[in-house]
Amino acid sequence: MSDLAAKLVGELGDLSTTLYQKDFLLTWLQSDADLKAVLTAAELLEELYRRGVSTRVFDSGLAVSNFRDKSTRTRFSFASAASLLGLTPQDLDEQKSQVAHGETVRETATMISFLTEVIGIRDDLYVGDGHEYMCQVADAVERGFADGVLPQRPAVVNLQCDRDHPTQVLADLLHLTRVFGSLEALRGKRLAMTWAYSPSYGKPLSVPQGVIALMPRFGIEVVLANPPGYGLLPEIVDIARQHARESGGRLTLVDSMEAAFDRADIVYPKSWAPLSIMQRRTDLLHRGDARSVERLERVALAENERHADWQCTEELMKATRDGRALYMHCLPADISGVSCERGEVAASVFDRYRNDTYREAGHKPFIIAAMILLTRCERPAELLARIAREAPPRRGAVR
Amino acid sequence: MSDLAAKLVGELGDLSTTLYQKDFLLTWLQSDADLKAVLTAAELLEELYRRGVSTRVFDSGLAVSNFRDKSTRTRFSFASAASLLGLTPQDLDEQKSQVAHGETVRETATMISFLTEVIGIRDDLYVGDGHEYMCQVADAVERGFADGVLPQRPAVVNLQCDRDHPTQVLADLLHLTRVFGSLEALRGKRLAMTWAYSPSYGKPLSVPQGVIALMPRFGIEVVLANPPGYGLLPEIVDIARQHARESGGRLTLVDSMEAAFDRADIVYPKSWAPLSIMQRRTDLLHRGDARSVERLERVALAENERHADWQCTEELMKATRDGRALYMHCLPADISGVSCERGEVAASVFDRYRNDTYREAGHKPFIIAAMILLTRCERPAELLARIAREAPPRRGAVR
Amino acid sequence: MSDLAAKLVGELGDLSTTLYQKDFLLTWLQSDADLKAVLTAAELLEELYRRGVSTRVFDSGLAVSNFRDKSTRTRFSFASAASLLGLTPQDLDEQKSQVAHGETVRETATMISFLTEVIGIRDDLYVGDGHEYMCQVADAVERGFADGVLPQRPAVVNLQCDRDHPTQVLADLLHLTRVFGSLEALRGKRLAMTWAYSPSYGKPLSVPQGVIALMPRFGIEVVLANPPGYGLLPEIVDIARQHARESGGRLTLVDSMEAAFDRADIVYPKSWAPLSIMQRRTDLLHRGDARSVERLERVALAENERHADWQCTEELMKATRDGRALYMHCLPADISGVSCERGEVAASVFDRYRNDTYREAGHKPFIIAAMILLTRCERPAELLARIAREAPPRRGAVR
Repeated sequence: MSDLAAKLVGELGDLSTTLYQKDFLLTWLQSDADLKAVLTAAELLEELYRRGVSTRVFDSGLAVSNFRDKSTRTRFSFASAASLLGLTPQDLDEQKSQVAHGETVRETATMISFLTEVIGIRDDLYVGDGHEYMCQVADAVERGFADGVLPQRPAVVNLQCDRDHPTQVLADLLHLTRVFGSLEALRGKRLAMTWAYSPSYGKPLSVPQGVIALMPRFGIEVVLANPPGYGLLPEIVDIARQHARESGGRLTLVDSMEAAFDRADIVYPKSWAPLSIMQRRTDLLHRGDARSVERLERVALAENERHADWQCTEELMKATRDGRALYMHCLPADISGVSCERGEVAASVFDRYRNDTYREAGHKPFIIAAMILLTRCERPAELLARIAREAPPRRGAVR
Repeated sequence: MSDLAAKLVGELGDLSTTLYQKDFLLTWLQSDADLKAVLTAAELLEELYRRGVSTRVFDSGLAVSNFRDKSTRTRFSFASAASLLGLTPQDLDEQKSQVAHGETVRETATMISFLTEVIGIRDDLYVGDGHEYMCQVADAVERGFADGVLPQRPAVVNLQCDRDHPTQVLADLLHLTRVFGSLEALRGKRLAMTWAYSPSYGKPLSVPQGVIALMPRFGIEVVLANPPGYGLLPEIVDIARQHARESGGRLTLVDSMEAAFDRADIVYPKSWAPLSIMQRRTDLLHRGDARSVERLERVALAENERHADWQCTEELMKATRDGRALYMHCLPADISGVSCERGEVAASVFDRYRNDTYREAGHKPFIIAAMILLTRCERPAELLARIAREAPPRRGAVR
Repeated sequence: MSDLAAKLVGELGDLSTTLYQKDFLLTWLQSDADLKAVLTAAELLEELYRRGVSTRVFDSGLAVSNFRDKSTRTRFSFASAASLLGLTPQDLDEQKSQVAHGETVRETATMISFLTEVIGIRDDLYVGDGHEYMCQVADAVERGFADGVLPQRPAVVNLQCDRDHPTQVLADLLHLTRVFGSLEALRGKRLAMTWAYSPSYGKPLSVPQGVIALMPRFGIEVVLANPPGYGLLPEIVDIARQHARESGGRLTLVDSMEAAFDRADIVYPKSWAPLSIMQRRTDLLHRGDARSVERLERVALAENERHADWQCTEELMKATRDGRALYMHCLPADISGVSCERGEVAASVFDRYRNDTYREAGHKPFIIAAMILLTRCERPAELLARIAREAPPRRGAVR
């Protein structure tokens, strides 16, 4: 076992988590120990993977995904996590299923769960719906297991909802611990979570909400910047504030990218939609009023256009700590002159940090695998210790 | 090995089955021993699964599915069975393939079978087509194997055709043996297989046909009820009659739900389409006459409407044995006031039996896995005995 | 270990290949030793498979496929190869991903590769694009691995591009070595690669190009026949000529099927589109000019029609060596009177060689698996020797 693996096994063993037989829906529903356990288990799985150790802890079973929005990286992260642990990925494509025929969420959730260990859901299109839907699925499998209908209790893992994007922001946090050395080293660091201009429309609020709710818990000083009308869900801002208070972190709201970037150690410039527009859009979509949605889109794009100067430029980067803040993005970024004429970030800035953002993304499969492992295995530290000591190589073993 | 596992291994070993290197297309093509072997192997796989024993008998190989109709539960049951046994599920999506380009069934079947252990097919839309198609696929792989073109002979498993739905009705039968204690305990029990009203149109006849053909073989007294014009395929009614004669079971035809429910131990109220309409629809679809299909649909719905009182109500349930008959359904049910205004079953009845119907459905992955195991492994009882004694846990083993 | 397995292990060990940590894009980018290694490893994997030995060399990891054109046999060959080696197949469906949103190839390639061992790509629709795209993906993963962004370096495998179809033509070559006894026995054999009439339009040129570039390297005398205007890419004809010169093979160009079939040992009659039409079509598609594409299609079909007599008939087969040349096809063939009124081949000819073409196709999963093994495992001969000696059976082992 490598020194790093031994250290991480020790740390994981010291954390008392409550994730076994539970779901992972919102970071603020989990204790600090739970979050640290996810980070630690993810880092350990990544270390074992890089050393070629097989971490196949399941011999069979399904890892079901349900993507209610387009997805590349989350889809592949989920499938990778499933494969890493020995599960068979299976996508619930609602177009090919009978779900449309008036079947209840409870019934569908039960029917796909007889041999299922995890259900990963992405549902971020409608404000107020995504999290609600995940709770219904979680409730269904909880009841199914309690009633003896399901032989095991699959974990529901939030792969992005209208409120939070926990697999993303925990991958972000793991990335920060690697760049800055440790979780402790992040205390007092200044992170600018700021709105940025994009020629597209309707990007979810889950990433900025997830960032402001998570980062202050570990002593990070978050500065949130957005144009008027682009504020996040008030109850999540409240949660973030409370976390900051409790942990010695901080949440500051400012109204310009300049103010946010000032002396920042980390910048996270990213477009999102105005909440009021997302809410009106949700209503219109529920009513099936496609023409009004189109009209709304034009209004939203015009409104966006007024803030086209919210762009992460070289100039702005100079105002950060020593001019060398770490640039972050959940990808894909709207890069000026590359993926669009004018976007969230200047091409030269993105280029300099491209590999950083790729490394940031590269943690996600391991974060998801850690969530599956911690929710589905009773003594994860013990299991991973055994794996680190005894497991065969991932490639080329003959059993 | 648990006592139950030991008992089931013994029972399986005593049955002389002929399923090895064969298909599973229609229950009435199989001997009683074959059917008992499927039930026993399924129960054993389920017992081993619940005790956390890995039943991965394949180290590689494909489990191909071909769904020519929408499906959730059967799709997931098939993928679950594949994963449980170590096979890789692979869906043949005819939209994404070259199959439309005039390729023969024989060629497609061969091309997808080079490393394939099982081909599961759902083809229930056209009367007279589904079973025919499965036979063509089975014939193709049989010839391919005989000619040395295929290194192994994949089993074709019927996941629902126009005549039978064997994975469903064997899951139903396994459910009955669990509820009533044993297969023997079902002798003399009265099962009402009855048509029920649904606001939808064109549901396949395969479930009621499968039920009346299978259940009388084990001494169950089946009462079949439907409005005039909703009779099942005459040749299958004949098969059911013959099975009843041979086994001491019974098949009675009545013309009202009331008559069927009278003193029933089990009720299975379910909508299906009139055969004559299905046949005309098949002709029209083959001719590509979409407008006439629409007109036919309106006629069918109007006809359906005349029998809207065929609903499984609390009132009717009272007429069953001690007012406590077991309610069954293959799901999804059309529940009055829930999934539709007026449907097959009253909400309060369905609610009382909801978990029973979920347990009924929960057997299906194991029934499918049993079919794969019995068709693909030469000495299944021996193999399962070894697994029960020596196999590692499904979760958390380090090899 | 069987005698054949022992012989193949020995042969593989004697070849010094350079495939480890590389891609497989075009046969003419690989050395003779590399090509022989693919053939030998494929034959060995097939021998082990037929003897029931598990060749699961990976315990986890993704095998990503990206089909930019419809596909049945290649899709299933790829999934079969993945399953055979223990990888989880995962399809990148560009319709369901965010790829359309202006994301760069480099970024998408990286995002799907964090736990990926192989990326199989089919991109054959646009002349000049397919190979280019694969190079971009290969470049992206090469850089990602060099930069430490990717923990391993996935191999890019060409599942058909605009220039070559290496998995097909190597399966073809393996088929020839089995029919004629050995690779050496092919020296001096005459192969007619000839255009044939099909009522369809726009079939790729990759198969005939792949055949003429590959076969002369092993001393086969290739005669290429096509109507005027149906010539292949000149640079590939040049490559083929050079290969012929270097190896003692030969490439002859003739202008009739008759001339090509004369004394041929092997015939490969197959339709393809005129290069000039493919190029114009590529331009029009890039410009989004659907109406002109339609008009072009009519022109192309009319042009095709003029050569409707290019059909592999019994009459023509008589002119081959002893009237018994081996008929080959990559499938599906356009069979006169079966899949179309008049096509590439007479029904009686196809019927006589049907099983041969199926065997030809049956090598493809093993060719793909060999490419994965050789690009991803450092000492493949050693590994396969260990597997041949020690690996458990593929079916029915209890670990």
